[in-house]
Amino acid sequence: MEFSSKLLQNAVDEISQLPGIGKRTALRLVLHLLKQPQERTTLLAKALMQLKQEIKFCKSCYNISDSERCEICSNPHRNKRIICVVEDIRDVMAIESTGSYRGLYHVLGGKISPMDGVGPQDLFIETLVEKVKEGNIDELIFALSSTMEGDTTNFYIFKKIQDYNITTSTIARGIAVGDELEYADEVTLGRSIVNRIPFESSLKQ
Amino acid sequence: MEFSSKLLQNAVDEISQLPGIGKRTALRLVLHLLKQPQERTTLLAKALMQLKQEIKFCKSCYNISDSERCEICSNPHRNKRIICVVEDIRDVMAIESTGSYRGLYHVLGGKISPMDGVGPQDLFIETLVEKVKEGNIDELIFALSSTMEGDTTNFYIFKKIQDYNITTSTIARGIAVGDELEYADEVTLGRSIVNRIPFESSLKQ
Repeated sequence: MEFSSKLLQNAVDEISQLPGIGKRTALRLVLHLLKQPQERTTLLAKALMQLKQEIKFCKSCYNISDSERCEICSNPHRNKRIICVVEDIRDVMAIESTGSYRGLYHVLGGKISPMDGVGPQDLFIETLVEKVKEGNIDELIFALSSTMEGDTTNFYIFKKIQDYNITTSTIARGIAVGDELEYADEVTLGRSIVNRIPFESSLKQ
Repeated sequence: MEFSSKLLQNAVDEISQLPGIGKRTALRLVLHLLKQPQERTTLLAKALMQLKQEIKFCKSCYNISDSERCEICSNPHRNKRIICVVEDIRDVMAIESTGSYRGLYHVLGGKISPMDGVGPQDLFIETLVEKVKEGNIDELIFALSSTMEGDTTNFYIFKKIQDYNITTSTIARGIAVGDELEYADEVTLGRSIVNRIPFESSLKQ
């Protein structure tokens, strides 16, 4: 793609380095910004710079936060003896939006993935193990995605904490609510049969 | 979607105002930027600000340019007596990439579209008519999209210049090179039959 302007080319190049945005989309976005008032671009640029410079990560759970400790960790009504282990803050937001969980989180910042050069030392695993060692935790809930990397990470953490007296659990896998059985994949359907639950308890949910 | 941080929310809100980008995509982009070095965000913000503040539009054809007159208008090897009328600079880039056109352009900046509140006075139509009046133009090529708005704009301009001694033409519509006839829409196929060209001249292309 040839540009008539170096400034335009520069802006398109920078935007198209974002994931999932190609040169064509970048050009569309840039032309949109050019048609908007100057203020729009200023606000966008400022929001990005401010985010990058001022964002904090909660010292306890590594969730994104505006203060030293995030709102969840500093909420006195949350159960501090249960920790849900997740990959990134999008998972925290997803679980929070269900309103079904009242414990704390621990954001690992990724999964162990040797293919991508991510080892256990690149994730916040040691601090999680420290929390368990301190003895104030009753249960760890593993809520990583059920991929090879997710399972590896779960197992790595499990090995490190299995000698301490805590419960470990993993979120239930099964057919989504409202889904047809005939379209489910075999692994999911198989798991949902093996891990069936008493009918009475399903009535209460 | 609830955010644990005002800064994060602000950045996601600003990005999701861009066309075709929803809250989820915006969050993905922002989290990507957070994982990258500070420099990445600085370069992106700077490129956007610089573009908006310093960009110029060619005084003659309204193409985006770093100087007063764009590279195409100031190129002595281009035929200044032929002008191709296009909607925006993406069309200029598309036609330039074919390498088949050696004339100049005139970027209207949009199409007449009463539904979107865009009238003739919002587009660079008057300056195009001025160019024709000055008598240095032999041919106008209409290369707007063949929609209701495109046709209206073509016709509006045509009415304004029909009394001057110039040729007007419109780009050929027809079956794309390599396309199967059976999948073409009727209007396109119909036009390509009505506007058929001598077989000999197709051999030279």
